[in-house]
Amino acid sequence: MKELEERIRKDGRVLPGGILKVDAFMNVQIDPVLLDHMGEEFARLFKEAGVTKILTIEASGIAPASSTAMKMGVPFVFAKKAKSSNVSGEDMYTSKVRSFTYGRDYDILVPAAFIQPDDCVLIIDDFLANGFAARGLIQIAEQAGAQVAGIGVCVAKLFQPGYRLLKDQGIRVEALAPIQAMDDNSVIFADE
Amino acid sequence: MKELEERIRKDGRVLPGGILKVDAFMNVQIDPVLLDHMGEEFARLFKEAGVTKILTIEASGIAPASSTAMKMGVPFVFAKKAKSSNVSGEDMYTSKVRSFTYGRDYDILVPAAFIQPDDCVLIIDDFLANGFAARGLIQIAEQAGAQVAGIGVCVAKLFQPGYRLLKDQGIRVEALAPIQAMDDNSVIFADE
Repeated sequence: MKELEERIRKDGRVLPGGILKVDAFMNVQIDPVLLDHMGEEFARLFKEAGVTKILTIEASGIAPASSTAMKMGVPFVFAKKAKSSNVSGEDMYTSKVRSFTYGRDYDILVPAAFIQPDDCVLIIDDFLANGFAARGLIQIAEQAGAQVAGIGVCVAKLFQPGYRLLKDQGIRVEALAPIQAMDDNSVIFADE
Repeated sequence: MKELEERIRKDGRVLPGGILKVDAFMNVQIDPVLLDHMGEEFARLFKEAGVTKILTIEASGIAPASSTAMKMGVPFVFAKKAKSSNVSGEDMYTSKVRSFTYGRDYDILVPAAFIQPDDCVLIIDDFLANGFAARGLIQIAEQAGAQVAGIGVCVAKLFQPGYRLLKDQGIRVEALAPIQAMDDNSVIFADE
């Protein structure tokens, strides 16, 4: 998606350690026009996939999931990151996710009522790097007995293992801005 | 907003202790049509207010802020809840918020770059009860030297102190579903 790639070139910042900051327009402060267009593009890509529900994870997945859900006309659910181990008494699907940023595991939770065996789930997130969050969300869909239509991410770092691992599992992965390589001075996208 | 009030009557659940659960359609699983209409209604209410930026707080404020931002065509920013006291080196506005659910204080953070003195800020959140989060967000806007256009909340519990305290401060508060009273069997809205 050229619009997102150009915006990353213009307003993104590459920090040491392979960190790409897009907080000025995509995941802390969010440009409403870009958000609308990203939702439209995910909706176009997965139009024929029979999606009945969108699944994402707090906090930065919620904005792209919102716009995609509005464009597709299907509900979305966001997984919460557990603050403690005393999960509420409600029937929950849970999965363990490794945090790249914080270097430790956390549990993610989705109330079981919100994903049904006849659902076809589209997973939406802002970033795909190691794929830990995506794999946690796939496990949640599998616990529910639901089908996974695929994963849509705004930005994928193709040089980190997540993208390849998911493709090898036979999962459809669509990245609006697939990054082939990145250094302190430049970002190279896979589709240019 | 009749559509939201009817939905709360139909699919909301009142739990002991004055807890209203709207997680099936508003803040864990989100109905995309309702979300779109709530954004439209906030945009209509604050159309003449000169809003340049929307400010909310993770996680459940992000969806209504997304749809409102898309309808108004202005960016939104979400405050993060600090996981620890080692706030990043970036220039941040911070405020202390008391959590009704967890019974302890936490810090909220917004990068200073994202709210400017010439901004006119609309605060959006899902719930207004004691008003702790709203007052924290107002403090953040004040630290930035920005103007506050008002607060838009999906649901306000008028029988808890937040709504009155904000009005007494001279803040404009718009609630799509203002709840006058609530017991285990029924919800009474202020505008009926």
